Formats: sequence, structure tokens, C-alpha cells
Amino acid sequence: MRVHQMWNAYPALKTDLSQVLELIEKHIRVRDKTVETTIRNLVHSGGKLLRPAYSLLCSEIGPNNNKEKSIAVAAALETLHMATLVHDDVIDEAETRHGNKTIHTNNGNKFAIYAGDYLFCVCFTILSRHANSLAHLEFNARGMEKILSGELDQLNSRYQSTVSVKNYLSRVSGKTAQLFAVSCYSGAITSDASRRQAMLAWNMGHYMGMAFQIIDDILDYQGTSDTLGKPVMADIRQGIYNLPIIYAMQENQEAFKPLLSKGDTLTDEDLEKLMDLINRYQGVEKARHLAKRYTHKAIAQIKKMPKGDYREKLLEITTTLLNRNV
Amino acid sequence: MRVHQMWNAYPALKTDLSQVLELIEKHIRVRDKTVETTIRNLVHSGGKLLRPAYSLLCSEIGPNNNKEKSIAVAAALETLHMATLVHDDVIDEAETRHGNKTIHTNNGNKFAIYAGDYLFCVCFTILSRHANSLAHLEFNARGMEKILSGELDQLNSRYQSTVSVKNYLSRVSGKTAQLFAVSCYSGAITSDASRRQAMLAWNMGHYMGMAFQIIDDILDYQGTSDTLGKPVMADIRQGIYNLPIIYAMQENQEAFKPLLSKGDTLTDEDLEKLMDLINRYQGVEKARHLAKRYTHKAIAQIKKMPKGDYREKLLEITTTLLNRNV
Repeated sequence: MRVHQMWNAYPALKTDLSQVLELIEKHIRVRDKTVETTIRNLVHSGGKLLRPAYSLLCSEIGPNNNKEKSIAVAAALETLHMATLVHDDVIDEAETRHGNKTIHTNNGNKFAIYAGDYLFCVCFTILSRHANSLAHLEFNARGMEKILSGELDQLNSRYQSTVSVKNYLSRVSGKTAQLFAVSCYSGAITSDASRRQAMLAWNMGHYMGMAFQIIDDILDYQGTSDTLGKPVMADIRQGIYNLPIIYAMQENQEAFKPLLSKGDTLTDEDLEKLMDLINRYQGVEKARHLAKRYTHKAIAQIKKMPKGDYREKLLEITTTLLNRNV
Repeated sequence: MRVHQMWNAYPALKTDLSQVLELIEKHIRVRDKTVETTIRNLVHSGGKLLRPAYSLLCSEIGPNNNKEKSIAVAAALETLHMATLVHDDVIDEAETRHGNKTIHTNNGNKFAIYAGDYLFCVCFTILSRHANSLAHLEFNARGMEKILSGELDQLNSRYQSTVSVKNYLSRVSGKTAQLFAVSCYSGAITSDASRRQAMLAWNMGHYMGMAFQIIDDILDYQGTSDTLGKPVMADIRQGIYNLPIIYAMQENQEAFKPLLSKGDTLTDEDLEKLMDLINRYQGVEKARHLAKRYTHKAIAQIKKMPKGDYREKLLEITTTLLNRNV
């Protein structure tokens, strides 16, 4: 099972991640084999597998590492992530992801909607088979609810050029950071972690998720379609204003207004002008600075965890992610 | 809480159904209050509440009727049904349901997709808080998986005029009948039903669901937009061929070909011609006959259940549904 090359340096973790993918694939069973293959291909689409990796690492925090359970929980969380990606791609009208054509581009929106729904159910099947308890499951379901109500809030705030840093952070917190926090917490729980240990995992996941999403959003301004596997400045085109542009707008709201008032009719030239403005007001630098602060907060949580090989890996990976360019 | 008038004859059940709706509404919590209201309005949209009603009635099969648990399970199942309806309406591009504008018509596809996802999560939150066991929950999740893989199969078979009675029945079985069976079974489980009692509930739900969907599909050919709350012959326009047209085509495939080959460009006049053909070959009569057979199978299961007031109600309601015209 192909696992992203970023895990080559961690062979044991890479093996576990490969088992996570196998478990997901095993649960995808549809009578129509064309349909089944399409959905199974999502599993191999080359995502970074960060959520399951963090979940697996956190499953070594507590006294009783349970391999089978921790792989199942990681698989459920990655399946959930895949489900939200499939629906996100319909909503964002994204044509590619990780350089591959998205499922709705190939098979239509209708297919993509049901495929995402199907994956939601697979997530719950895996979880209910392997969760520690109904309370643990309820916790996961509530965590997911929060992610989706965050998405709904975000939809309602598109094309509002007055979005504040606080709004942005609360959106990221409800979306990416929430799923990372749930992943780390759920991983910790499989090892019978104490309440304090589980909370360290939750907080670390939250801070790390905040940093991860801020950097992801910065990359949307900096990369090329080739390195990113998706169009550049896709978010601004969709009316989603991220941290770099928000910081820049704080300096000179008026300069941005004529461009942003064009809504979804922005031309490539307009986008270049926007990029110049963002650079002039150091939007990207400021955003990067905040990502660094969140990374440091995550690292402070990791340092409070019980010593062990997993802890060194968490430190390394979290630091590396801050400096990534893809 | 408004409950469909068909339950006026059953005051105790009507009270329970009203509590089901209240519980669902209580679980819908979104920061943005406009969003919350939109989703909560779905709860009041006037559906028949058949799945929760059957689930509640089946929760009196076993020795220990647990009101709190049975209401929660019924609420989870209705929430699941609502989630699939919201996504179905996006997929079918349906403009109205029960005479109200659909959520995607009012708020756009994007909103509808996330709103459906959100409701999926609410369903699992309610279930995981109140399910009898993780095994019960896994059972529910698998049941839902089956419904969605059925939908995916159906999408792939649109506009195929060679669909057989067997294909049709297997599609209905994987969709409507499956959810009714899960509802009845889950209801029975809350009352600590024996394995035999739970299977009677499952089978009754399956047969009743088959009859219900066949009649629903017949009504698509017979009603008016006013009585149905949706356009007439909507399914044929969407390339979904139901039992009446399948039976008619068995008699004279060639007569239908020129019309059906038009795919989604059928005019109102074409639809009238199709209706004439279906009537000539008694498609509706034959379909109604099969619905009657399924109803009788459901009734045979009910008669094997332990005696009680709930059993009389199941008999009455199941018989009534066969003769409904809305």
C-alpha cells in the first residue's frame, strides 16, 4: 500500500500507516465493482496521512499500546477526512487534489455526494467496531458535528471582506484543528491514557492543527499549481479570505476594496495585484510568524508527555511541518 | 411540535413522535443562528415520520419497554432519513418536498451538502449516547453503509431502459426497505427483544418498506404536483425507471424505446405518451398487486409477534399505508 514519502524516515510508523490504508480499503465494499474501485482509489490518492500518523503516535502515550485498536481508530479518522475532502471538492468546485482529478470531476457531483456519505458510514462502522466505549464514540461524533457546523458557518461568511483575524482563527479551530485534536485524543485513549495525558494529546493536536492550516493557507499564495496539486490562490477566487490577506487588509482596508468587490469575477491580473498588496503589507510574513507560535505551543505540550521514542518523533515531525513547502 | 395528521388516531404514539422531534431539534446546535434555524426547520417540514413511528411501535415487542432509549433511537433514525433526503434533493435537483422549497433551492447546493453531513453526525451522536451497545451501533452503521452503496449503484444505472424487475426490487431493498428494517430492528432491541422477536421486526420492516416504496413510486405516476408536493413523473425525467414502467416495458420493449432514448430531454407531451403506454400494458395495476403481496408478508410477520396494543396498531397502520394516495 503506497504511503506518502514523508514517512520514509520512520519505517515502523510507515508500516502502521500502510495497515491503516489496508483496513480502510477492506471496509469499502460496493456491489458495483466500478463504483468500488473509484472509492478505493481515494485511499491511494497520495494524501500525507498526517491525521492517522499523529493518532498512531499518540497511541503510545498511555500504558497499554493496543496496535489493533490504534490502527482502527486511525483508519476511521482518515476515512472521515476523506469523506469531508470529497464533499469539500464538490463545494469548492476543485478540479484536482494532490495532482489527481477529483472524484466529482470524473464521476459527477451526484456520485461524489453519495461517495462521501458512504465514507462517513464506513468511518462509523470502523469506529463502532473498535472504539473503547460508547462514550468515546459519542465524543467522536460530537467532534465531527463541530467540524461540520464550522463549515456551515464558513459558507455563510464567504465574500465578506471584513473577516477578522479572530474569525479566521475560530474557523480554522473548528475545522482543521478540531480534527487533529480528535485524532490525537482518540489515539491516546486507545492506550488507556490518563485524563491528563489525553488532554496533552488533545491540546497538542489543536495547536499543531492551527499551525498546519495556517501554513497550508500561506502555501496557497506561494506555490505553483505543480507543487500544490491545485490552482494557486484558489481560496481568494472562492471568496475565502485567509490569514495573509486578512493581516494585509488590517493595514489598508481601502486598497483591497475595489479588487475584492469583484467577488468571483477576479481575473488573473487582479489576483497579481492582490498578491502585490499582500506582499507590501507583509501578510505572509505575519501569518508565518503566527504559525511558528502555534508550533511552539504544540511542542510545549509534547515536552510534557511521558518520555519515549514516539515523543521524539512527534517533536521532529511537528518541527518539520512548520518548514514545509508542499 | 407539529406531527403529521395521520397520527391523530393514535394519541400516545403522537406524543412520543412529538418528543422524537423535540430531541432532534435539541441536538441541532450551530453557532450561526440563521444556519441553525434553517436546519431546525427541516424537523418541522411535515414528513410522515413513518420510520420513527415503526421503530417506536417495535420498541414494545420485547419485555422491557424503555421510553427514553426508544425515543432516542427513533430520533437518530429520523435524523438519518433527513440527512439522506437533503442530499437526495441536491442529487435529484428537486425543488420542493412536502410542498416546501428544498434546502438546496433556498440555500444552495453547498449549504445542503454540509447540512446533510451535519445531520449524519447528529444521528451518530444521538445513537452513541443511547445505543444499547457498540455492537448495536456497528449494526446501524453497516445498515447505513448498505443504503448508500445502494444509492451509488442506482446512480450508475440511470437511463438504462433494460432495468429488470429484479434490479428494481434489489434497489428498493437496499434503500427504503433497508432503513425500515433497521428502524424496526433497532426499536425492538431497545426493549431487550429476543433474537426471534428482533428478526420478526426486521422482516416486517423489510416487507413493509418494499410495499411502501412501490406505492410511493406508483403515486409518482398518478398524483398531481399539489397532492404529492413534488412534480409528477419526476423519476422518469431523472432516468429512474420504476416498477410500473418496468412491468409495462416487459410487454413491449420496442414501443418505449423511441421515447426513452430521449434521455433527459423528454417533453411533457412525451411523458403523456409514456403514461398512455404504461396504462395500456397495466403497469400500475401490476405494481399495485406486488405492493399488496409485500403488505401481506409484513402482516404475516406482525401476526407472529407477542400480543399487545402495539401489534394492533402495526396491523392497522400497515394496512392503511397500502391504500394511501399521498
